[in-house]
Parts: sequence; C-alpha cells; structure tokens
Amino acid sequence: MHIEPGSLLKTINSPEDLKKVPREQLHQVCDELRQYIIDVVSVHGGHFAASLGVVELSVALHYAYNTPYDQLVWDVGHQAYGHKILTGRRDAFPSNRKYKGLSGFPKRSESEYDTFGVGHSSTSISAALGMAMAAKYKGETDRKAVAVIGDGSMTAGMAFEAMNHAGVADSDVLIILNDNCMSIDPNVGALKAYLTDISTSHTYNKLRDDVWKILGKLPIGKRFTREMASKLEAGIKGMVNKSSNLFEALNLRYFGPIDGHNITKLVDTLKDLRDIPGPKLLHIVTVKGKGYALAEKDQTKWHAPGLFDKITGEIYKKKFDTPQPPKYQDVFGHTIIELAEHNKKIFGITPAMPSGSSLKFMMEKMPDRAFDVGICEQHAVTVSAGMATQGMRVFCNIYSSFMQRAFDQVVHDVAIQKLPVVLCLDRAGLVGEDGPTHHGAYDIPYFRCIPNMVISAPMNEQELRNLMYTAQLESTELPFVIRYPRGEGMLSDWRKPFEEITIGKGRKLRDGKDVAILSFGHPGNFAAAAIRELRGEGITPAHFDMRFAKPLDEELLHEALTNYERIVTVEDGTVVGGFGSAILEFMQQHGYKNEVRILGIPDRLVEHGTLKELHHECGYDAAAIAAEVRSLTTSNMAEAI
Amino acid sequence: MHIEPGSLLKTINSPEDLKKVPREQLHQVCDELRQYIIDVVSVHGGHFAASLGVVELSVALHYAYNTPYDQLVWDVGHQAYGHKILTGRRDAFPSNRKYKGLSGFPKRSESEYDTFGVGHSSTSISAALGMAMAAKYKGETDRKAVAVIGDGSMTAGMAFEAMNHAGVADSDVLIILNDNCMSIDPNVGALKAYLTDISTSHTYNKLRDDVWKILGKLPIGKRFTREMASKLEAGIKGMVNKSSNLFEALNLRYFGPIDGHNITKLVDTLKDLRDIPGPKLLHIVTVKGKGYALAEKDQTKWHAPGLFDKITGEIYKKKFDTPQPPKYQDVFGHTIIELAEHNKKIFGITPAMPSGSSLKFMMEKMPDRAFDVGICEQHAVTVSAGMATQGMRVFCNIYSSFMQRAFDQVVHDVAIQKLPVVLCLDRAGLVGEDGPTHHGAYDIPYFRCIPNMVISAPMNEQELRNLMYTAQLESTELPFVIRYPRGEGMLSDWRKPFEEITIGKGRKLRDGKDVAILSFGHPGNFAAAAIRELRGEGITPAHFDMRFAKPLDEELLHEALTNYERIVTVEDGTVVGGFGSAILEFMQQHGYKNEVRILGIPDRLVEHGTLKELHHECGYDAAAIAAEVRSLTTSNMAEAI
Repeated sequence: MHIEPGSLLKTINSPEDLKKVPREQLHQVCDELRQYIIDVVSVHGGHFAASLGVVELSVALHYAYNTPYDQLVWDVGHQAYGHKILTGRRDAFPSNRKYKGLSGFPKRSESEYDTFGVGHSSTSISAALGMAMAAKYKGETDRKAVAVIGDGSMTAGMAFEAMNHAGVADSDVLIILNDNCMSIDPNVGALKAYLTDISTSHTYNKLRDDVWKILGKLPIGKRFTREMASKLEAGIKGMVNKSSNLFEALNLRYFGPIDGHNITKLVDTLKDLRDIPGPKLLHIVTVKGKGYALAEKDQTKWHAPGLFDKITGEIYKKKFDTPQPPKYQDVFGHTIIELAEHNKKIFGITPAMPSGSSLKFMMEKMPDRAFDVGICEQHAVTVSAGMATQGMRVFCNIYSSFMQRAFDQVVHDVAIQKLPVVLCLDRAGLVGEDGPTHHGAYDIPYFRCIPNMVISAPMNEQELRNLMYTAQLESTELPFVIRYPRGEGMLSDWRKPFEEITIGKGRKLRDGKDVAILSFGHPGNFAAAAIRELRGEGITPAHFDMRFAKPLDEELLHEALTNYERIVTVEDGTVVGGFGSAILEFMQQHGYKNEVRILGIPDRLVEHGTLKELHHECGYDAAAIAAEVRSLTTSNMAEAI
Repeated sequence: MHIEPGSLLKTINSPEDLKKVPREQLHQVCDELRQYIIDVVSVHGGHFAASLGVVELSVALHYAYNTPYDQLVWDVGHQAYGHKILTGRRDAFPSNRKYKGLSGFPKRSESEYDTFGVGHSSTSISAALGMAMAAKYKGETDRKAVAVIGDGSMTAGMAFEAMNHAGVADSDVLIILNDNCMSIDPNVGALKAYLTDISTSHTYNKLRDDVWKILGKLPIGKRFTREMASKLEAGIKGMVNKSSNLFEALNLRYFGPIDGHNITKLVDTLKDLRDIPGPKLLHIVTVKGKGYALAEKDQTKWHAPGLFDKITGEIYKKKFDTPQPPKYQDVFGHTIIELAEHNKKIFGITPAMPSGSSLKFMMEKMPDRAFDVGICEQHAVTVSAGMATQGMRVFCNIYSSFMQRAFDQVVHDVAIQKLPVVLCLDRAGLVGEDGPTHHGAYDIPYFRCIPNMVISAPMNEQELRNLMYTAQLESTELPFVIRYPRGEGMLSDWRKPFEEITIGKGRKLRDGKDVAILSFGHPGNFAAAAIRELRGEGITPAHFDMRFAKPLDEELLHEALTNYERIVTVEDGTVVGGFGSAILEFMQQHGYKNEVRILGIPDRLVEHGTLKELHHECGYDAAAIAAEVRSLTTSNMAEAI
C-alpha cells in the first residue's frame, strides 16, 4: 500500500530542502511529518510515541543546524523517525524495521546524517563530546555537535560520566534534554522528580529573574545597610551561579526549560545556541505521543503498539481458534508473584522495563517488594547483591543485551561474593526487529567465563517456572542465570505445580541412532521439530535438552558422547565461546573425539528482521537443524559403506 | 619482625573495646592507629595514603555506630586498613596482601565487619542501599547502612545511578563523601571542581545560614512590601530547598562539609546523623596521606609506595647489576608518544589511571591529545568511539578488570560500528597482590565473543611496540585489543624500529617433535623457559607464539595441528571460553582430533599473592608447562611402545 506524504513534506528530500521552507510554513512541515509517521507506523509497525514527541525538535534541529556537517546524535534512537524521514529516507520509511529494510535506529552505514549508531540508552553525550573534541582539535571551530537525550536516559550513570567530562572539556557540545517524564514506562528516580520540579513549579530562569528583579528594588535604609545588601547579593549570587542547578554544578550552561512543541521558539533558541561556545544544556519539555490523543494518554502502551487503526485507535490483535502459548515474559511476571507469596524473601527489580519484562504485575500487587529503579543496569545488579547479603532473594530482570552494562557488577559484586542473586535474562538470543544492538547474542560466553555462575535456559514455560522455583530455594546458594527469549513459548497450559530441577541436570527427550542433538533453551523446540521431520525419512537422532550451560550435566554428556558418534549442538547465542564451546571443552577434558557441529548465531553482526527470518538466516531453525543431521547421517552412511 | 601497636590500640580487639575508650582519648587511638599503619605498611607494603586519610573517620564510625549490626561499606577499599585493624585483625595485619594472608580489600569471608567485598570503585552506595532496603523491609528500624565513598569514585556513573534511586527509596542510608580531591591520581572533572567550590569558597551551610540571618533582619518599609518580602523568601527557599546543591537535587539531605580529621566533631556529627532517618549525605574533607608529611605532599607516589624507610621516607628500590627490562606500562607510555609524534590522529585516554598506565608521559608532553577523564570506563570507551568517527585513532587504556565496566560500550559503540578504537588492556591476566577483584582473567572470552574484534597480546616489549604500531595504521580498520600484563617484560633493549605485524599472524619460535606449545602473550616466555628445561632431557616441543586470539592464524594452526599430535595451549586468562577454547573451535571446524591440554587460569576464584605464587598455583608457570609436556611425551612414548 502506497502511503502519500503531505504536499510540503513530499518536496523535502534533505535538510537542504527543509531550509528553503519559510519559517512560517514550518508548522505545516511538522503537521505533515507527524501525519506521515502515524500513517506509516499504523500500517507497518514500529516505535510510535517517541518520534511523535520530537517532531518539532527534529524539524528545528535540521533547520537551525548545518547537518550533516554539524553532527546530531540521537540517544537510544526510538525517536529518530522524523530525522530519518527528513534526511532522504522518506520513501524508504515503510521498510522500517523490516528484513533488509531501514533500521529502527540511527545507523552509520545507513546515512551520513546518522553520525552514531544507537539503540542502548545514554551513549549520546559521550559520542557527541568525542565529535566535538575532534572538531576542536582539527580547528573546525564552526562545527557543532548535539546530543538529544531523554530524561529517562539521563538516569543512567554513563550520561553523568559524560557530563562530568563535558563540563571541563572546553568543547562545543550542546546537550538537549528531552524531558517527557518517560522512558518506555514512566521515568522514575530522584532526578525525574527534580526535573519535574524545575519545569513546573518555579522555573529556574524565572526564579533567577524574580530574585534579581526584587534585589534591584531593595531599599537601602537605616536598618538595612549597604554591607548587608552586598552580603545578601553575594549569597544569592553564590547560589545562583554555583549551586543553583544540577547541570550548572557540572559546569554546563543551562538553558530552559522551553516548550518543545513550539517550533518557532525552538528554531530561535537553537539558532542562538549554535553561536554560544562551550558545553551547554537545553532543557525542553515535550509530550511523548504528541498529536495522537490516545498515545498522549497512555504513553507506555503506545511506545510500540504494533499495527493499529489510526482512526479508531484499535490496536490489532491476531485472532486464534485455540488457546495460544503465553509470552515467556508473562510467565515470568505471574510466576514471580506465585513464588513471592510463599517465599517472603523474594524481591523483583527491573531497570526501567516493568512492562517489557512483565514485572509490572508484581509491582502492582506487591509494591514494597518489586521496583523499577530506572535505566541503571549497574546499580540494579549491585543493589540486588546488597539485598542478597541480607538474605533476600532478588530476581533482577534485565534484557540480555542490556545486561552487558552490568557485566562488571555481576563479576565483582555477585559472582566473586557467591551471592545468590537470580539474574533473569529476558530477550536472550536473537530479538528480531530491534536488530544488532538488541540481540542477546553474547551472554552465554560472557557469563560462562565467570566462576560460581549457574547458567540455565528453559525449553518452555513450565521449565521457566521450575527454574525460577529452583533459583529461589534456600539450598540454591549461587548466582543463578535464567535466559529466555522474547515472545511466546510452547505450552498454552503452563501453570502446573512447581518441581525442583537439580542444578546442572539436563534431560533426555529422545533416544536415537548415530546422531545426538544437544540443545540449550528454547531452540530445543526447533530441534524437536527437526526430529519429527527426520523421523519421516527414517533418520532418528537422539535429543538432549541440556538445560544448563554451566555447570554441565556430565553424566548426560558421557551418555551422549559415548553412544552417539556425531553431535549437533543448538543454541540461541553466538557460536564463539558459547554452549557449543562448553561441549568442546568437556570433550577435551575427557578425551572424546566425536564429530561435532555447532549451530547458533554466527560470529558476525546479524541485522534486523523477524525472528523466523533471522533464525533461518543464521541456520538454526528446524529446517537447518534437520539439514545438518541429514548431512551427518549421510556422511556416516557413506563411511559405513 | 614483630611490630608493636601502641598501648591503647593494643587493648582494642573489636569495636566493643573501642567504645569503652573515653571520648577524650580517641585522639590517642587515632595517633596509634596511624602509627601502626605506617609501621606495618613501610615494612610489609600495601596501599598507604588512603588509609591514613580516614583514620579519624574509621575510629569515629566504629565509635558512633553499632557495627557490625550497623553496616559499613567502604568504597574501593584501599582505605579500609584502619577498619580492619579496629575489627579484630590488628595482629593479622602484617599478612596484608600476602599469599594466604589478609586481603588488601574488605572481604565478606574475612570478617563479619566486612559487609560487602570491594575493589572496583563506586559500588558502595548501591550495596548500602540494598542493605538499608532489606533492613526496612525486615522492620529493623534501628539498623543503619553507611557507604564511605571518595570524590574520585563519585565520578563513576554507577554512584549517580545509586543516588538517583536512594533519593526516592525512603531507606535509612548515609553516604559519606570522603572528599580529598584524589583518586590514585588527582581527581578530575566538573564534579571535582564543584566539590572544591562548595568546600572552599562559601560552604553551603554557611551560605544558607547567612542568607537566612539577613532575611530575618529585612526591613518592612514602604517600598519593600510584605508581598515582595514573601516573594523573595519563596525564591530563596526554592533555591535552597530544591536547587541549591547537586546532592539535594537528588533528594539527599546534605550535611557538611566538615573537617574529616577532627575526631570529636566527626563522632558528634555521626551520632546525630545516626538518628536522622532517610537518605542523606555527609561531606567530609580529608587529606590523603594525613599525618605522613611526604605522603601529604605527593599523594600519587604514596598511594602504594612499596617498602620504605618510615623515618627518612626513602622508598626502597631493588638494585641490579645489569639493565632490567622495563615495565610493559612504560613501554606503552613512551611508545604512544613516539607514534603520536608521527601520526597526528593519535589520542590517548585513560579513566583515572595516568600513573598506573603511564599515559602520564603523554599527558605531560601532549596535553591537548592525552586525557584523564576520571573514573568512568563507560564514557572513556564511547568518547573514544565518538572521536574515531572523526578519523581520530584513540588509544583507550583500561585495566582488564576495569574494562568489564565498559563491556557494553565495546559491543555497542565500538564493535557494532566497526570503529578502529585501540583498546589497550593493561594488567591483563593475574595481577598478584590485588587479588580476585583485580585479576584480568576474563577479557579473552568476553571480547572473543564479539564480532569484528582483533584481540592481540605481545610476548615482549618489542611485540607490544609493533602491535601498537600496527593498531594505528590507516589500513587497520577494526577495533584492536592489545592485552598485556602488569609489570616487567623481557627485553632491556626494547626501543627498536617499528615493524608492522600482519593482523592474525602468529610466529613459529621453534620447530620440534611430538608436542607443540601454542602460547598467547607474555606466558610464551614461561613456555620458552619450559622448553629450555625440557631440551636438557631430550624432549623437544615446538613453540608457536600465536599473538592473536582473534582472528586466529589459520595457516600456522594447520601447520601445528598437522605436524604435532599433541598440543599444549598457554594463556594468562581463564580456561573457560578463552584462547584454548578458540583452538578447540578451530579444530572442530576443520575436523582435527589432536590431543589438547589447556593451561591458564582455572574456573574458580584465584586469591591474592605474588605473581610467581599464583602462576605456580594455577599451573602455567614454566615448571607446570614442562610437566604437562613431559606427561604428554611419556604417554606418547608409552603408546608408541
């Protein structure tokens, strides 16, 4: 279906074209840009509310700044659809997030306007500062760098680190704080309260103005001496100049807050700021979902709603005749409540993903035991470790690719101290449309190399429940990782009584002949499907669901390696140093020489697409597993003849 | 040599004993504690200046708080010697940092007073907050948690994340900001300037007091109406309450700054604070090295000076007859200058380790191209990536165990974008006396799993120089890791002309018979020593210095695996998923079935000790390599017979 952009937007193929639009017509550009985003996303899907919130900012930045010479870095990038449409990708935009189509995030290889690839939060100030420092060094004094960062992203420590450096780096960087009180879920924490405070009750500038105005009118009378006045002035000056504002404390010049939907005011302010040297911060206030009433009202729901009827606002749901399996996320979300009702030591912690992880159910039901701590994976892990020292059993739920942020904390605060924190790695393995920044490809090797870790993965919902049950038992005394993928499991009837799983024990699903498939986690289902297909051809591989990448089930491995000459391993993670490598290490230690094929994510970047497309591309869907077994069986037969 | 503590300190075996000391004698406890630290560290070594700076704080905390029920978390832990001595470890203190002796850092398994193991910076607020949250949940309303954190550690984002949470968590946590303007090197960044500002020019409290005092005296005359007065008052209140201080902006009650060497004042303040509920911060100002004049004067030198004459202040140096090899660190420090003189695109960045990494040489010589960015590994990597987008070639030098903090930034900002940042991993492998928190044990697997990475390790100084040379060539277009150990290399004559090393090319050092040793990095020297020993016995293994763990030298590996039935791999890193596993993966891909032995750091925590002790314990020193080859050769001969 062809989607027609508005008449003015149609003429804008680059920021050059945008700059030709008269100021008074910028409103129309904004309207058409907003409408085009609504039209395309409602039909093709993608992130929605964030880009609507920065339509005016996107237009203003490309209007006021000299892009791509001036360099814009969009933090996270959910909000960069307007930027993409204005920078030559209008007609390609319907391919957004589709296999071989546009990336859902800014990406250097896609456009010279995408100066820095993003996806994870809070990198933009560091990146822009690096650009500004290089420009300064090269003598490009007229070249500007701008980071656009949300108040949610501002809570991650990395943003603070970057500001601490920017404040002394004497470089020409502008930080635009896009304050909408939201991450994907509502933003939390002291900073958010502070920003709301300075935005709503007394604005900083107004306050300063008021005080100075009044000071100008102070009477110099008998009892109020000149000395006292100057002392007061110094005191207020001291506060205003040195201590008055969190950002000014970090030596950033602070401007704002201003209305981020006032296009004229934005353009004027940005044009002014472009000429002010040094590190500075512009605080703008925007509404996430701006211009689409339903999205303004329920911003979390409309962060990435899927396909919808743009007129009625109905979000389409697939319809099925039979009950469908639930998402692993919901199984986690409901199961932790069941467990916490019996085990008073259980807590739940999420860094800014209450909806995505489904911890929100527990946060609603047990608000004193389940917390969203903001975008701060590092703190989330260590605060969990702190609670674990007091005998609490914290389920710290972090997406696999975001857990990369807390790697040191897992080593240093959890594993070295052998604290029994439960690390639920959501969205482990390929994630689909979010692409390479979000694939949970590396957690098996990055956790497997750490001593004291238990690394498990469920093959279905019931296994997830039983692993969660096992992880919270008093007798479980080690850090316990449970990795599971994004999306649906396999069992519509999953709420069975809990059963303990012995740590390091896998299960044999099927005996067979010649070949054994050793699978780890959800791709065990791809293996099972492959086996069903192969049995029709008279090929009968055995199947072991190993459940644990660490510790390995040595007994089961001895059985598999002794009885089956050829081994296929399957995992939803990189083949470098992962589960397959663990099997190779075990074989080396015990002198096994079986022939092994390792299926998983290849050692290259995997781009975005549907899970089905990507599993196929990477060669570990059912068809690929079947083909691998077939080829091993054929070569086996050939040899036998 | 027995070191006698002072007469009062001798009676203090626990904080219970300390509490019996009358207030007016606490000075004497401090004096004796300080003297005992000087006496022991001068003879036995260890960190020095940090603990001297918090003698009074250590005494005051254990005097005013009810430890161990009240829980103290010392950030980093360099400064916790006084705490250790006061909590039952006085007589064991001379074993500090020695093999099987006390740990140089607080450690849970060592004492109930060590509530949280530390070593890396900036974890204390998260840990203490976790403890406070648990206490609150358990109804232990009289139980307090205290984090002691330096101004250096405060620059790491994790501390900010924790404060952002603490400010809204409604828990009883006290953060003590130990402000001495130092990390190991002088602290840097906007925050440091800010803290100095509020500590020195106008103290916050004094300012607030002054303004309020004056306000109380304001005349209510004709021209200065009541309305204006109340407006002014509201304005000032607004500034004071909401915006006046960075910490109060995060909703922490701020107290101080006070003199951290005034023991009576400290005790009084802490006793008061113990009764004030909610999250709060006490800002104390101390002098690192306090009480030892030379240390006060050169705090970096005296951070961990080694053994010294406590009277004269002479730091002992080993004396040698022949020129000794330099430290790898100094080779890095001098070589980057040589390279930067020719290649104008080269920059150097260190997060707070200018002395440790020897980047200080370049910082002195080329201050516009080499920076200490503070304790902020995450920002350090991403700002390097930002500069790399502008064609700069940044050498970002981070200790291996600290690089764990920037793992996500390496994946997300460097590797996914294929930016040619040079990551110099200092102190890779076992580090000796600093122990498990500091061993660089995991970087080979945690980097090997990332696509696009080049991972190299030099076997000596010249190789380090040539790898650095190669890393900065225009033709080198990938992220380039160079890992090297702490301490001396092998060559006293190392400053040879640069030679390019082809990426992914190792070198054959010696042909041999039956067994091939494949080494990665510096332990190649242990292998060479083993071979010299073995040749005396008629055993002649071949030796390949592989140089790269990624990409592997496939040609060389085919040669080794084809010609030598038995393979020994040696690396200064964990055997799980590391270099040895890379060899196994290569063998699996190419169908090799050689017998392999993998030597390296075992999959358990390795405690502290000298490098020699630890290499021996872990089984990859020369003797262990020789033994392994011997056993392989014997079994080979047995088979042949």
